[in-house]
Amino acid sequence: MAEKPIRFGIIGCADIARKLSRAITLAPNAELSAVASRSLDKASAFAKANNFPPSAKIYGSYEDLLDDPDIDAVYVPLPTSLHVKWACLVAQKKKHILLEKPVGLNVTELDKIVEACEANGVQIMDGTMWIHNPRTHKMKEFLNDKERFGELKNMHSCFTFAADEDFLKNDIRVKSDLDALGALGDAGWYGIRSILWAVDYELPKTVTALPGAVLNEAGVILSCGAALHWEDGKVATFHCSFLAHLTMDITAIGTAGTLHLNDFIIPFGEKEASFTTVSKSGFTDLVTGWVPVPSQHTVTTDLPQEACMVSEFARLVGNIKANGAKPDPKWPSISRKTQLVLDAVTTSIAQGSKPVEI
Amino acid sequence: MAEKPIRFGIIGCADIARKLSRAITLAPNAELSAVASRSLDKASAFAKANNFPPSAKIYGSYEDLLDDPDIDAVYVPLPTSLHVKWACLVAQKKKHILLEKPVGLNVTELDKIVEACEANGVQIMDGTMWIHNPRTHKMKEFLNDKERFGELKNMHSCFTFAADEDFLKNDIRVKSDLDALGALGDAGWYGIRSILWAVDYELPKTVTALPGAVLNEAGVILSCGAALHWEDGKVATFHCSFLAHLTMDITAIGTAGTLHLNDFIIPFGEKEASFTTVSKSGFTDLVTGWVPVPSQHTVTTDLPQEACMVSEFARLVGNIKANGAKPDPKWPSISRKTQLVLDAVTTSIAQGSKPVEI
Repeated sequence: MAEKPIRFGIIGCADIARKLSRAITLAPNAELSAVASRSLDKASAFAKANNFPPSAKIYGSYEDLLDDPDIDAVYVPLPTSLHVKWACLVAQKKKHILLEKPVGLNVTELDKIVEACEANGVQIMDGTMWIHNPRTHKMKEFLNDKERFGELKNMHSCFTFAADEDFLKNDIRVKSDLDALGALGDAGWYGIRSILWAVDYELPKTVTALPGAVLNEAGVILSCGAALHWEDGKVATFHCSFLAHLTMDITAIGTAGTLHLNDFIIPFGEKEASFTTVSKSGFTDLVTGWVPVPSQHTVTTDLPQEACMVSEFARLVGNIKANGAKPDPKWPSISRKTQLVLDAVTTSIAQGSKPVEI
Repeated sequence: MAEKPIRFGIIGCADIARKLSRAITLAPNAELSAVASRSLDKASAFAKANNFPPSAKIYGSYEDLLDDPDIDAVYVPLPTSLHVKWACLVAQKKKHILLEKPVGLNVTELDKIVEACEANGVQIMDGTMWIHNPRTHKMKEFLNDKERFGELKNMHSCFTFAADEDFLKNDIRVKSDLDALGALGDAGWYGIRSILWAVDYELPKTVTALPGAVLNEAGVILSCGAALHWEDGKVATFHCSFLAHLTMDITAIGTAGTLHLNDFIIPFGEKEASFTTVSKSGFTDLVTGWVPVPSQHTVTTDLPQEACMVSEFARLVGNIKANGAKPDPKWPSISRKTQLVLDAVTTSIAQGSKPVEI
């Protein structure tokens, strides 16, 4: 690393910021430079608990951190309802933004943020970590292989976890004024992203909510699903929930092969991650078994996936800083497409599962 | 086996009848006694190729086999459109019926068959083999375990295989006058059955076809899916297709655990079959891994699942013959429920994915 590492500030001490603090520490081209909370004590305790270097600055207000000229990039783990205000301000202060998902309450909000980023020449990337796991790249090689996978025909993705009573009563993700998208924003985001990832981010023609969405008294989604349909016949479904046991599957079925994994968002372990594939399989003569059977592929990771994300973001920021490069438009573009589908799901739920055209 | 084995006749020499011939040979309480084809030569060649005993009778007409007093039970692998005629005749001849799936083109047809069976005191069972695999019973123990699985919340099931050009042009399963239900009857049957099996055969409140059903020029379904919804909030989806690579998954998610397998209809191998479960899993402190991770369970099988099916069917028939027992109503009941859901899917497809109440 000849170039100086990218200096990160974090605004807000959400639980997820602990994981990101470690990721920034681990990424070779990034460093933890500051943290801000509305309470100076809280920021100070957070820095201590998360191994911030002694040089790191502690702020008692988000604004003060954003005014610090020694910060290059800001990680924003605030509740979704605060994203427009703070992400736009980060951009106006000419700082690059790593923004937690869901990026906005709707695509109009995201567009305001992206506009601010474009106007100020800063990079934005959302906090979807699994996309950066080396395993994900290996899986994409399989999906892109016409010989082994063929054309995608069907996909199913799900992310559920069983929230406890306290979560369902008090967590920001069940509050209509904080994270009004609930399970759709927190868990469904990943299912939608995985489907778009598999189809090279080609938007579906229609999005249809599945029957049985569960909303709490405040109207926040606790469980839902949808079917996505493309003009060429591809169909994908996803399910997300706070009300069912921890599950995170991808099944992608092509004309020539199938991909499976059951830990796509958070791999079972940090050092290595697996998936299974099978191509051109058929039955034995009497239909009593498969030939060939699926095989497992394991990918080892030097850095945990969240550090890969920080490292890729810091690389883009470094390139802008050192070489005057343009921000990479891929990242706001895939955030926007994910949000567009998410918006269509909420619309379809509100309209009693009517198909919504995108 | 003190009792004499149940004597089976087979009418029609479909490909699947080869597998069943072997299963009848393997089942300790069953024996291959006769085969009929509209062509005597074909029946004779079939008997020779499938290791029928020398004592087995060869018939050049289905009627002749049904008139044979030395036949206790008949396996019917004929195209679905012929089921009403022949299954009713089998019943009238006081012979027990093992009937290939889908059992009828619709539930009205099945009801005629079941009525004939009841009027003549004969057992009927459909040819869904995987239900009889010892693995299936082990999986059900998990799903019934309130501690390890809890209450079912969501399920996904799929069965797809990539039919070749010849199949898509000539197979009986793409012909509107033979197996008009196409992929829904041939493959979707299993997905629907697996969902009903998981919920102890409680019928859903609504069935909604997913967008994107593919029909051939004759109107036969080549690919489709549906969402099933129960009043208590359970949701299940299935997908079936002749147009995508061989895949057969069950994911069942309860409040406390998750079940996965990727070979539910035809296990990868004949001697043993596996599934994975995980209960009460959560994330490590920094959300970088799972605790616990899923574990795999392997169940060995003395007999292949199709021989387990034959053996269970023959046991019921033997009990009727020897002890004057009543036919077991469970089997026509679960066939009927499967067919009811299947009918709702075809209705929903015809109505542009409107929810259909059952």
